[in-house]
Amino acid sequence: MTRWVRFRDSGGRAGFGALDAERIVEHEGDLFDRPSPTRTSIPADNVELLAPCTPTKIVALWNNFHALAAKLEKQPPAHPLFLIKPATSLAGPNQKIERPAAYRGKIAFEGELGIVIGRRCKDVPAQEAAACIFGYTCVNDVTAAEVLNEDANFAQWCRAKGYDTFGCVGPVIASDFDWSRANVITRLDGVERQNYPLSDMIYSPAEQVSLISHDMTLLPGDVIACGTSLGVGSIKDGSTIEIIIDGIGSLVNTLAAKADMKLRRT
Amino acid sequence: MTRWVRFRDSGGRAGFGALDAERIVEHEGDLFDRPSPTRTSIPADNVELLAPCTPTKIVALWNNFHALAAKLEKQPPAHPLFLIKPATSLAGPNQKIERPAAYRGKIAFEGELGIVIGRRCKDVPAQEAAACIFGYTCVNDVTAAEVLNEDANFAQWCRAKGYDTFGCVGPVIASDFDWSRANVITRLDGVERQNYPLSDMIYSPAEQVSLISHDMTLLPGDVIACGTSLGVGSIKDGSTIEIIIDGIGSLVNTLAAKADMKLRRT
Repeated sequence: MTRWVRFRDSGGRAGFGALDAERIVEHEGDLFDRPSPTRTSIPADNVELLAPCTPTKIVALWNNFHALAAKLEKQPPAHPLFLIKPATSLAGPNQKIERPAAYRGKIAFEGELGIVIGRRCKDVPAQEAAACIFGYTCVNDVTAAEVLNEDANFAQWCRAKGYDTFGCVGPVIASDFDWSRANVITRLDGVERQNYPLSDMIYSPAEQVSLISHDMTLLPGDVIACGTSLGVGSIKDGSTIEIIIDGIGSLVNTLAAKADMKLRRT
Repeated sequence: MTRWVRFRDSGGRAGFGALDAERIVEHEGDLFDRPSPTRTSIPADNVELLAPCTPTKIVALWNNFHALAAKLEKQPPAHPLFLIKPATSLAGPNQKIERPAAYRGKIAFEGELGIVIGRRCKDVPAQEAAACIFGYTCVNDVTAAEVLNEDANFAQWCRAKGYDTFGCVGPVIASDFDWSRANVITRLDGVERQNYPLSDMIYSPAEQVSLISHDMTLLPGDVIACGTSLGVGSIKDGSTIEIIIDGIGSLVNTLAAKADMKLRRT
């Protein structure tokens, strides 16, 4: 298993490489097309990790876990149900989640598995879909909960989930990861709030890639957020939220405190 | 008023320029940052027009015209209601609209005004929003109508409107265009189906840019499709649909006939 990261070094230079214990073996070329190692290896502590890929879109699923469907008394859907989070919603590990300027309501976390697409795929048959998956990452699908149903005629999925920094992705892309044996764990200020098995998914990653590739072309680096299960809740300003998937790692983000926001504006 | 186009010449080279009567004055550099004219001018008939910009996202509004809201018996919304069409949905002038491989249902046209963003904008005050607009174009916001409400629990806006080639944009970006005096006309195989005044918009272009820039960062080349009004209908395979806005031009696309689709697959 390779754990791919993107980073920015102290000089502001961005790069990518394979995380090997405490060091990053830097690579060059195209992450998705046989990148080659450089002769450089960098202590991971010396760099800032960025989101491990730069998706053109994040396709985020709703109602993809049996346990949550049962709790919500919903039938499993006949096709993956999704919305699109724009590329501008991307946030990397340790990046502050920013409260929208005009929004004072609840902000919810959703710990999820993220699929990272490795090649252009359109109308991919089910049996070929696994080969389109480059690897897996952790996702926090952040939501401005009170925006979602603000208008009775139109559920505002893209708006509620599309704000800048509301698509937290990272810390690594793990290749050859066996999702079927892993759990997603979410901790809010250190307290466990979600812990659900990925084996409870309604549509498996390969099924998602195949079916969604019939809806739109998926591109290298695009992310499918597989949906969440039980235990979703809200984050207070200044609180830290951690998404942990054993075999991938821990994605930590803090919702900017009001003091940070004032600072940001001056 | 400048009418900007992108094109591909007979050698396969892509370029952009200003359309002046029958010729394109080619430009170089960044369309959104003081492009400079080259010494080349090309007869427009000798090139294939492409979509005039390459958005990272198309933000598509619903319920933004008083006449349609009245017909649907909906209140004007308290904020622009939108979904996101991915960059992969883009189609240019005269490009075939492709029926999704597994979909046999109705495909609907929606003639709309498109706003093309000219600069990065986030949290833009209303009085500064007009300066963020590079120009205007025609949009056909194509929809797989029967996908939209296939699941009773989740309106599939992004899926129904996000298919490849379902975001028709063009033929030009008109700068200094006075939308308030223009109508959107849609013709299906030459028969007028929509003809509505843009002055009936609920949120004006500048209001849309300001409000949506508080929801997500808008980038140069991004398109906001302003929503449609009365007269939406469906397109038969092989039919031609034309969106006309006086001062911008005519955007013509054909829904690929079944014969074309077979051809495409062999």
